Amino acid sequence: MEEQFGPGEGLDEQHLRALKERIEGSPFHRWSGMRLVDVGRGEARVEMRMEDHHLNPQGIAHGGMIAAVADTAIGLALRSVLPAGNTHRTAQLNVHFLAKGEGDLLVGRGRAFHRGRRMGYGEADVLDASGNLIARATATFIVLPAPGAF
Amino acid sequence: MEEQFGPGEGLDEQHLRALKERIEGSPFHRWSGMRLVDVGRGEARVEMRMEDHHLNPQGIAHGGMIAAVADTAIGLALRSVLPAGNTHRTAQLNVHFLAKGEGDLLVGRGRAFHRGRRMGYGEADVLDASGNLIARATATFIVLPAPGAF
Amino acid sequence: MEEQFGPGEGLDEQHLRALKERIEGSPFHRWSGMRLVDVGRGEARVEMRMEDHHLNPQGIAHGGMIAAVADTAIGLALRSVLPAGNTHRTAQLNVHFLAKGEGDLLVGRGRAFHRGRRMGYGEADVLDASGNLIARATATFIVLPAPGAF
Amino acid sequence: MEEQFGPGEGLDEQHLRALKERIEGSPFHRWSGMRLVDVGRGEARVEMRMEDHHLNPQGIAHGGMIAAVADTAIGLALRSVLPAGNTHRTAQLNVHFLAKGEGDLLVGRGRAFHRGRRMGYGEADVLDASGNLIARATATFIVLPAPGAF
Repeated sequence: MEEQFGPGEGLDEQHLRALKERIEGSPFHRWSGMRLVDVGRGEARVEMRMEDHHLNPQGIAHGGMIAAVADTAIGLALRSVLPAGNTHRTAQLNVHFLAKGEGDLLVGRGRAFHRGRRMGYGEADVLDASGNLIARATATFIVLPAPGAF
Repeated sequence: MEEQFGPGEGLDEQHLRALKERIEGSPFHRWSGMRLVDVGRGEARVEMRMEDHHLNPQGIAHGGMIAAVADTAIGLALRSVLPAGNTHRTAQLNVHFLAKGEGDLLVGRGRAFHRGRRMGYGEADVLDASGNLIARATATFIVLPAPGAF
Repeated sequence: MEEQFGPGEGLDEQHLRALKERIEGSPFHRWSGMRLVDVGRGEARVEMRMEDHHLNPQGIAHGGMIAAVADTAIGLALRSVLPAGNTHRTAQLNVHFLAKGEGDLLVGRGRAFHRGRRMGYGEADVLDASGNLIARATATFIVLPAPGAF
Repeated sequence: MEEQFGPGEGLDEQHLRALKERIEGSPFHRWSGMRLVDVGRGEARVEMRMEDHHLNPQGIAHGGMIAAVADTAIGLALRSVLPAGNTHRTAQLNVHFLAKGEGDLLVGRGRAFHRGRRMGYGEADVLDASGNLIARATATFIVLPAPGAF
């Protein structure tokens, strides 16, 4: 990874804990089966336990679910290096689908690459249960001041 | 639209009907609340009735659901102009998120722009319940011979 | 086009004229053979006269030149609807290459679709001398206050 | 890098040498100032010596030149792992512009990530003279049988 974010940057431990709780409690994440495993210092790992209803009619993970995993992993990685009092919105997400994936797990590993005052950029790998790379994604974010938000 | 597909191209009425039935019956579409409204001659319209569980923690449609609507709309639009005996896979999907969206509906309108022997290209608008444009997406597809498939 | 920009928005006639002069006089545009034909109200048209040195070793327009035409056309279309005192920078550019192109001209037609206070979004068609569509492009821009700039 | 290409894959030394010569002699590369420094086993490095005519009116490398460097670096990286008798065409190129760049050099480092029978995928970093990352790019390629080509 080209850019490193140090221990004193972005959210502190207390904010990271609150962020995890908010994700765990969100209706989307419970419904979709997505779980935030780890987040901090510009990196995030999310997992989605695959069920039949995540598959497209050809029996492979629906592109939208892969995109959801990638978007979430990159967004949280970036979120962890933004100072409290800011929020972010995905402006653009590009996903390359490389392989089918096997087993019952999608793993998203997000990394923040660039954090400006107005724009952020990050990337994600999406892996299957065996650790095979099934997609690569890149995303552009708008960074917005939002008093009290994190 | 720059490229038009005529009435004799791609799938005939019987195949289109079977395609709709397969989509209606797929576990992903029932679970996600996505419905295929219309498909044929290089265009497709899908709708997703929004529920609380489709929203991200900021209360707006999760980027992954917008991507799912776009991917499905473009893929089916392309599918309708491929001759039977072929299948397609999304190679790449790029989504630009432009506005928040209001109301309880996402509408995806997909259009096939280019259909080659190896590659297809299409685009989608994603609209909210009031018809406001909330996202634009473009996608590249691999076209594959698949005897019996459509 | 989904979004219209009215006559009172963005740059006035005097600024548009100065913008054209700046483009005409820029070393890049003279060197590359790119010409700004028209700009205003969220649209721009640029042309590049093709020479042998614009072609890749396979004898077709180099992807970088198609990208240059698209980037310029979208950027100027957006620039025309930003109030004076702002500038913009391309954050992301995605180009889909659809056909080879024939003849000795590339035409880029850019359109601004969205102009926010922090982010802009636009699209371009790239056509050949016969008006055939050879590429479609989308781009995200950062909008920045820059006193005196336009 | 997730995927490795071994010494016996793709082009042999003789073909790689001929590939370099073709690039060196191409009108586009001489005109644009782009040089192929190294290529093989799924990686390629190209350099462009920056002149005033490569800059946009804001005095930074024109997005089209950055795109040209990225497209060339990824395409040659992929080309090096395709067996002789195939050719490739860029189907889609997405570039994220991250920083301005300083000094008089653009360096493009391309990597092939995926090589299928119909589709290839690769990425590039674009760096400035000091080794700072100024852009990241991803690209999708069509792979085509072309007897005698490499």
